[in-house]
Amino acid sequence: MGKPIGIFDSGLGGLTVARAVHAALPAENLVYLGDTARVPYGTRSAQTVIKYAIGCAERLLSFDIKLLVVACNTASGVALEALQERLDIPVVGVINPGARAGVAATRNRRIGVLATAGTVASGAYERAIRVENAAVQVFAQAAPLFVPLAEEGWTTGEVPRLAAQRYLQPLVEADIDTIVLGCTHYPLLFETIHDVAVELLGHDVAIVDSADATARALSALIDTGPAEDRGPGELRVLVTDLPGQFGASASRFLGKPVEGLDIRAIDL
Amino acid sequence: MGKPIGIFDSGLGGLTVARAVHAALPAENLVYLGDTARVPYGTRSAQTVIKYAIGCAERLLSFDIKLLVVACNTASGVALEALQERLDIPVVGVINPGARAGVAATRNRRIGVLATAGTVASGAYERAIRVENAAVQVFAQAAPLFVPLAEEGWTTGEVPRLAAQRYLQPLVEADIDTIVLGCTHYPLLFETIHDVAVELLGHDVAIVDSADATARALSALIDTGPAEDRGPGELRVLVTDLPGQFGASASRFLGKPVEGLDIRAIDL
Repeated sequence: MGKPIGIFDSGLGGLTVARAVHAALPAENLVYLGDTARVPYGTRSAQTVIKYAIGCAERLLSFDIKLLVVACNTASGVALEALQERLDIPVVGVINPGARAGVAATRNRRIGVLATAGTVASGAYERAIRVENAAVQVFAQAAPLFVPLAEEGWTTGEVPRLAAQRYLQPLVEADIDTIVLGCTHYPLLFETIHDVAVELLGHDVAIVDSADATARALSALIDTGPAEDRGPGELRVLVTDLPGQFGASASRFLGKPVEGLDIRAIDL
Repeated sequence: MGKPIGIFDSGLGGLTVARAVHAALPAENLVYLGDTARVPYGTRSAQTVIKYAIGCAERLLSFDIKLLVVACNTASGVALEALQERLDIPVVGVINPGARAGVAATRNRRIGVLATAGTVASGAYERAIRVENAAVQVFAQAAPLFVPLAEEGWTTGEVPRLAAQRYLQPLVEADIDTIVLGCTHYPLLFETIHDVAVELLGHDVAIVDSADATARALSALIDTGPAEDRGPGELRVLVTDLPGQFGASASRFLGKPVEGLDIRAIDL
């Protein structure tokens, strides 16, 4: 058995990343840590997020992981360097792959980023996109309502449409042609965001899902050998708190029922 | 100077309670602790909430408080007894006063409760209302979108109206005549909730704000003496993390600017 890939997030939203990684690298074993006792990170100071991220990473190291994926945008934005300095294994965040995919997709060099207030305030996507191509302009917009809408499964209909209209309006005025989804929850609202953006812009728009972009970045990093030589990879889930609605919420992000999953509550 | 009243909440929403207590008891000094590093409590297990609540209470005891108000509905629901057993001072939660005010207001003995998913799952309002009057029926409804709407200040217009319609529909079908706002954030949406409820019900409805009900309960507990003998009470604010948008969010809940407030970040 190969060493597993470690993935951590502030909560369950990062299961969208685990799902994308499993789809891209089906033979890999995954250990997912959701810091559900301290979710969300987006409202916390950088110092606090770094402390939490190191705690999550250290716990995952005890599973002898060969690579760490920081599925949380907030932690990717403020704690990636601290983790890379501290750990001897590769550490991959979701922001750089998302930024790279956004730069590859834009034609008019104007990219919109939808993210939590914390990620927007951090300027992390602006910095990452500037590194890729300094000529690209970035317009970041906080979309706080998208998180509870995704968690409730309220992803279509009038309310998500009106919320999307409100959050997309400044991006449309900035004439973007590409939108990067900078929060693990937002892929659940992909269709609504896409449809509203097309309506408001009057032309098609590229939507970049950071989870998919990160999974593709991993494929390039990992030499898996012929997949047919190995059994299907397994997913283990660790959570720091097990709330009542865990199953419904987790299965929404994972895109399948959680029955049969190896789920364990741990203390950090 | 009299000893202060201690108030704690998982975050800043409890400032609506501090505001109501200050309005009811203007000569009292208040020490508010917002556990912003670990907000929200509503998604956490009872065991975790009790641990956090004891931590908050112990910190406030170091300010020689004469009474503790648990402004957080989640903590009031699961940790009140643990705190009352542990502390030598009176401990008042927001649920019992809210339940009592709801029972006093209802005519048809059918009360709706709007709260977070965690508070609804705990059944705390049902229990508290049953103690007051076992003949009253309670219909509890989670309204998760109200929290980010209140935090964003998006309290009027189509989206809060549609969200209110969705959450109120089951309560209207249950023919309630009274609604208890069981989350510190919801008073900011008071008007929208009231207007939509009246439209859907076709008659007036009593809306009970637990913050006001709690402040009135305190007035009965505390013998302040003639207020004119003392200066105006002061509010000190402690937070366990100081996020970027602290000022805007805090002033929304407090109903006034935070400039001039004594705000300190502490570690718990």
